[in-house]
Amino acid sequence: MNASTLPAFPSHADTDPRQLGWMQGFPPPADKTIRFADGSYYEFPQRRWAFSHVRELLPTACVSRGSGPVALLPRAERDDLDAVAFTTLDGRAMTWGEAFAANYTDGVVVLHRGRVVYEKYFGALEAQRPHSAFSVTKSFVGTLAAMQVLAGALDETALVTRYVPELAGTAYGDATVRQVMDMIIGVKYSEAYADPKADIWAYAWAGGSRARPPGYAGPATFYDYLVTLQKEGQHGSGFTYKTVNTEVLGWIIKRVAGASLAELTSQLIWSKLGCEHDALFQVDSVGTESGGGGLSTTLRDLARFGEAMRCDGAFNGQQIVPAGVVADIRRGANPAHFASAGYSTLPGWSYRNMWWVAHDAHQCFTARGIHGQLIWVDPTAEMVVARYASHPMAANAFLDPTSLPAYRALAVQLMRA
Amino acid sequence: MNASTLPAFPSHADTDPRQLGWMQGFPPPADKTIRFADGSYYEFPQRRWAFSHVRELLPTACVSRGSGPVALLPRAERDDLDAVAFTTLDGRAMTWGEAFAANYTDGVVVLHRGRVVYEKYFGALEAQRPHSAFSVTKSFVGTLAAMQVLAGALDETALVTRYVPELAGTAYGDATVRQVMDMIIGVKYSEAYADPKADIWAYAWAGGSRARPPGYAGPATFYDYLVTLQKEGQHGSGFTYKTVNTEVLGWIIKRVAGASLAELTSQLIWSKLGCEHDALFQVDSVGTESGGGGLSTTLRDLARFGEAMRCDGAFNGQQIVPAGVVADIRRGANPAHFASAGYSTLPGWSYRNMWWVAHDAHQCFTARGIHGQLIWVDPTAEMVVARYASHPMAANAFLDPTSLPAYRALAVQLMRA
Repeated sequence: MNASTLPAFPSHADTDPRQLGWMQGFPPPADKTIRFADGSYYEFPQRRWAFSHVRELLPTACVSRGSGPVALLPRAERDDLDAVAFTTLDGRAMTWGEAFAANYTDGVVVLHRGRVVYEKYFGALEAQRPHSAFSVTKSFVGTLAAMQVLAGALDETALVTRYVPELAGTAYGDATVRQVMDMIIGVKYSEAYADPKADIWAYAWAGGSRARPPGYAGPATFYDYLVTLQKEGQHGSGFTYKTVNTEVLGWIIKRVAGASLAELTSQLIWSKLGCEHDALFQVDSVGTESGGGGLSTTLRDLARFGEAMRCDGAFNGQQIVPAGVVADIRRGANPAHFASAGYSTLPGWSYRNMWWVAHDAHQCFTARGIHGQLIWVDPTAEMVVARYASHPMAANAFLDPTSLPAYRALAVQLMRA
Repeated sequence: MNASTLPAFPSHADTDPRQLGWMQGFPPPADKTIRFADGSYYEFPQRRWAFSHVRELLPTACVSRGSGPVALLPRAERDDLDAVAFTTLDGRAMTWGEAFAANYTDGVVVLHRGRVVYEKYFGALEAQRPHSAFSVTKSFVGTLAAMQVLAGALDETALVTRYVPELAGTAYGDATVRQVMDMIIGVKYSEAYADPKADIWAYAWAGGSRARPPGYAGPATFYDYLVTLQKEGQHGSGFTYKTVNTEVLGWIIKRVAGASLAELTSQLIWSKLGCEHDALFQVDSVGTESGGGGLSTTLRDLARFGEAMRCDGAFNGQQIVPAGVVADIRRGANPAHFASAGYSTLPGWSYRNMWWVAHDAHQCFTARGIHGQLIWVDPTAEMVVARYASHPMAANAFLDPTSLPAYRALAVQLMRA
C-alpha cells in the first residue's frame, strides 16, 4: 500500500470534530460520545478529538513547566508559505497549504531562525491544548538516555540487566544499553497496528493505554508485560522499530536517575525550555509512564524542544541538552542496520538515540509518531517543524509521501528569503 | 462517636507516605503500590498519598490558569502562631501547631490581610501539587451558580427541569433551582460513608470515581445515575447534605453557560485569580466533571480563592466574584432549615450557595470537604485559612473539635498583633 492506494477515509474537512459535534453538550449525545472503555477514542475520526483530550480519557502524570517565565517565540509569520510547491513521493503536484488536508494535520508550527513563520490549528487542537505525541515521545526518552551516557551515569556498553535485573531471562537478558537505545534488538514482538493480534495490543492492554477485552487476565502493567518478552533473532545488527525497546530504556533511565520519567523530563528539559504549558504522560495502573508513546504537549512547546535540538541543545539562555548529545544524534547510526528494515520512504536513513536521522545534504533529523506527529529539524535551513496529526492510518508510510518533500520544499523557500 | 471515641488509627507522623515508602521505586514494591482499580487509593493511610496524586489515578479535565502573570502572595510569616492555644470542642488543651497531627493535615496556608503568615506541608503534599478538594468543590459550583443568578442568566425560582428536562420524573422534577443551591431537597439518597451500602458508593461507581465491583451493570455516568433518583420527603425546608444536589446544580449551570464546569471555573475564577497552577476536575467516562467533589488545586491557589471571597469578590486587581454573590453567601440561609440536620459541632449555622455559614460574631463562612479539606474565611479578622487533609474518617464531625476552635484562636491572635 502507498498513499495512492489508501482505503477511502472521509476527508480532513469532513472529520473536523467540532463540525461533527463530537463531545459537545452536557452530556454529549450518545452517537457523538467518545469513551476510553469502548475503544472509540482510537477509532477514526474520533481520534481527531481524542488525541487532543488524552487526560480526559486516561490517568496521566504532569510534566511540570516549572515556575519560570515563558520563553516567548518571536513571530515573523509569512504568507508565501502556503503556496510552496512540491512533488509528492508518488508523483503528484501539491503545495504546503494543501498538504495539511492530505495528512489529517491537527496543527503545525514552523520556526525559522527561532521565529514563528507559520502556525495553524485544525479540528480539536488549539494553541494551549496538549496533543498526543505518540512515538515522538521516544525521542525524548532517547535524548534523556544519551544525556545520562554523556554524563557517565549510564554505561551504554553495559548489559540492560545491570540496571534492570528483572529483565534477566527475557529478550533483553543479553542486550546492551546501546543496542536498546538504537533499537537493534532481537525481540519477538510485532508492532503491526493493522493486525488485531499483534503484540502491540497486548502491550497496550497491559499498560492500560487501550481498553482491555472482557475477562482480561494478562499482565497488569507495562513492566509486567516487558518481563514476558522473549528473544527472536540477534541483537546488534538489524534495526527493528519496536515500542517495547523504549519502555525498557525508560525503565533503565528511571533506575539510573531515581526519578520518574515525568520528573526527569520536567527537570532536565521541560522546566528549562520556558514552555507555555505543562506536558503530560499517560500512566499505567501503578503510575508508570508510557515512554514509548505516552507524552502529550502543546505544539509550540514541542517546537521549543525542536529549536533547542537545532541549536545544538541551547535555548532560552541555557545549554539544555549537551551539544555532544545532539552531535551524536546528528551523526546517526549505521545506515546498513537501518536498511534491512525496508522503509521505502527513508532511503539511507538511520536511527540513533531514538531519533530518525536522514543523512541528507541538510543533515535533517526527526522525531516521528505513527499518526503524523513530528519534530523535523533542518540545521542547514535553520528550520524546525512541529506537527501534530491524527491520520486514519497508523504508519508514517502513508504520511511521508506528502510530508517529507513538503518539509524539504519549505526549507528551500526559507533559505531563499 | 466524637473525636475522643475515634477508632485507633496510626498517627499523622506514622502515616507519612514518604516515610512509609508508598509509590516509591520503578515500579514500587507490591506492598507499597496504590492503585485505583483495587480501591487502595481510598484506603487509609494510602489516601495520604492518593489525594495528592488524583490525576495519576483517574481521567481529569484541566482547569486552566490561563496565561496571565501569577498574583504573588506577599509573605509575612510569623513564628508566634504554632503556640496559639485553644481548647478543643471536647475539652482538651491544644495548640495550633499540635492540631495538624490531630487532623491528619497535609498542608495549610493562612493569609492575614492578604499576606501569607503561615504555610506548611506534610506527607505527600507540596506547594506545587494539586490536592483533592473533595466537597470544597461544591462551594465553587454554588458560587458559579449564584453568579449566574445575579447576572440574570439563571432563574433561581425556576424548576430544575427548565434547564435539565432529563430530570423530570425524578426527585428533582418539582424542585426549584434555589432549593438545589441550598440543599433543601427531599431525595432518597444516603451519604453515610461508613455504610458500604450507602448510595454514595453507587454514585461513585456510576461516575467512575470509585472502582466498580466485578460484573457492575449499573449507571455508566454521573448523569445516568442522577436520573434514577427518587423523591423522599419534601423540598424547601430541611437541609440535608447530599452530594448529588451539587451534581444537579453543575448540570444546570453547564446548560445555562454552554460550557463545561472545567471551562467555567477557568474562565470565571481560575484564570482571574493569578493562580500558580492549573487545577483539575476528575471526570466520568464521558468527560462529565464531578462538581460534587472532583476538584484538585494547590493550596496557595485555594487560598487565593478564599482571599477573593474575603475581599467581597475582588482580588488581583479585578472584581472576580460579584460583591452581591459574596454578600448573599455571608447572609446565609435559614438556620432553622439547617438545625434539623443535627450537626452538633455547627450550632446556629446555615448552608447557602453551597457554602457553610457560621452566623457568628466574625461572620465566618467556609467550604468543607469530608477529610478535612477547607477554606475558612473570617472577614472580621481579615483571615483566610486554606487547609488540605486526609483524615482517616470521612466526616467533619471528627475534625471540627480540633479545627473550629483553632481557627477562632488564630483569628484572635492575628487581630491582636
